[in-house]
Amino acid sequence: MSKICFGIDVGGTTIKTGVFDSDCKLIQKDELLTRKEEGGSFILDDICAYINHTIKELGYNNSDVIGVGIGVPGPVVSDGTVLRCVNLGWDVFNITHKLSKMLDGIKVKASNDANVAALGEITSGGGRGYKDMVMVTLGTGVGGGVIIDGNIVNGSNGAAGEIGHMPIASFVTEQCTCGKTGCLEQVASATGIVKQADRYFAKNKVESKLVDIKNYTAKDVLDCAKGGDQAAKDIMKIVFDCLGNALANVASVVNPEAIVIGGGVSRAGQYLIDGIKESFERQAFLPCRNVQFKLAELGNDAGIYGGAAMAITMR
Amino acid sequence: MSKICFGIDVGGTTIKTGVFDSDCKLIQKDELLTRKEEGGSFILDDICAYINHTIKELGYNNSDVIGVGIGVPGPVVSDGTVLRCVNLGWDVFNITHKLSKMLDGIKVKASNDANVAALGEITSGGGRGYKDMVMVTLGTGVGGGVIIDGNIVNGSNGAAGEIGHMPIASFVTEQCTCGKTGCLEQVASATGIVKQADRYFAKNKVESKLVDIKNYTAKDVLDCAKGGDQAAKDIMKIVFDCLGNALANVASVVNPEAIVIGGGVSRAGQYLIDGIKESFERQAFLPCRNVQFKLAELGNDAGIYGGAAMAITMR
Repeated sequence: MSKICFGIDVGGTTIKTGVFDSDCKLIQKDELLTRKEEGGSFILDDICAYINHTIKELGYNNSDVIGVGIGVPGPVVSDGTVLRCVNLGWDVFNITHKLSKMLDGIKVKASNDANVAALGEITSGGGRGYKDMVMVTLGTGVGGGVIIDGNIVNGSNGAAGEIGHMPIASFVTEQCTCGKTGCLEQVASATGIVKQADRYFAKNKVESKLVDIKNYTAKDVLDCAKGGDQAAKDIMKIVFDCLGNALANVASVVNPEAIVIGGGVSRAGQYLIDGIKESFERQAFLPCRNVQFKLAELGNDAGIYGGAAMAITMR
Repeated sequence: MSKICFGIDVGGTTIKTGVFDSDCKLIQKDELLTRKEEGGSFILDDICAYINHTIKELGYNNSDVIGVGIGVPGPVVSDGTVLRCVNLGWDVFNITHKLSKMLDGIKVKASNDANVAALGEITSGGGRGYKDMVMVTLGTGVGGGVIIDGNIVNGSNGAAGEIGHMPIASFVTEQCTCGKTGCLEQVASATGIVKQADRYFAKNKVESKLVDIKNYTAKDVLDCAKGGDQAAKDIMKIVFDCLGNALANVASVVNPEAIVIGGGVSRAGQYLIDGIKESFERQAFLPCRNVQFKLAELGNDAGIYGGAAMAITMR
């Protein structure tokens, strides 16, 4: 009987869990509700109960478990110390030591959820076959993860890969959720795209299919742009310019082989990739320009795949 | 008798060499002329002759040599393949394999010279005691090196740390040496600072001590700014804004503990550090903002120290 490992992705609403074999093949996946009561103090108990139950249910023993890889929605430094998770009510503590102790010594490794998702995409998703990769998640916000030589870069405060808060868009004067102004997220997230469209139509009195859509979304902007609507194309040009600028900066720092684009906005597919690529290649330093742009493939499962990959490669 | 290693820094004019003990303490240093004739084909011969001669001269055998770490002025990928060095006339080849063979099997490790200098500063200079560090060199150009967990990040084309060509300064419309416009280097290098001063005085007819200096240099701009000259302070504000923006971007990607500033411009000392730090802290994402800014300490010896560190930590 081969060995197994667990990939756990703790979110603000649910905890996604996966059991994998030693080749990172998914055996089964489940979902638990995230109990945020009492400072999130039930969350690790619930995860342990699930893991212990699943080990038995599948007919394994603790000694058959390679390890547990866990992603959490907050900064985690390389030794496993969580530097607070506001969403969960967690304060500073070492999650790998604590969870490992609760699991009778099963090895645990932890990182920030965006970093773990990036690891999932490079081992089992859109970044397969690469060693140096950056993942950018375009969703409600803009997140990211940096993988060097197959390993997650956590950063000294667990904040590596926080590409969404690069100061890129000096034309944005409103305040970002982070307190600054001009962050990439304010232009390139789903919310940001809508805001840029609002700004565009406030300045330019032009005809556009978008104007007829009440409460248009980022998807509407992208669909209209794909359909040839000039205003929507102009809006996406602004978004692509900022994304290309940010990714050219990223490439100057770590010179990745591949950049994987994920998150809800990435459902726009090849149109999005083409727009980002054109802008990136215009702005990136020549020796860093040879980057493969790929769409993420694992969707919401990236975190559990990345957790499993962390467990398998744990030293 | 303890073991030794060599740190070699190949430049366009001279090759700096250092013999170190196994604790990275400098035993002696020398300099060879860089013979660029015939496509730089004599350079490795000269390095080998120097190493073989020095081993004997100091009374050691090949088996006493831990290894050789070498920095070259061009992109090098992790396996030791040099992707051309225009300055030296070198084409694509694996320098570690070639040099190791020429040295009867002594182990060799190679990287780009800016990366090796960064490693030197983190092991023996201004970055001592840190694990995650970025070095920025403000000289004729702007270069850099990224160290994660004590190791050089080379990047997929050996172009990691090329911070000088980040697209930062959209107000610069002239072409950079790299072919793009708006690179950090066009504002923050010694040449860039002078250009920004020229641009400032072309736009603003103001009094300044600088105007009276014929062919003022970056040092003149910095000295006048330190002395309270308002125009020089305004010019340095532009430079600091761009540097802070670039380093805030860097911090969003790798979240370093420390940023070490080197190169000729860094002789401006604490004034420069204070200016960069203020601008950085204004623009960096809060979780990445806690960065120690340090001055480089090793000057032109950073490359040989970094070479020795590469040799000692070689796997």
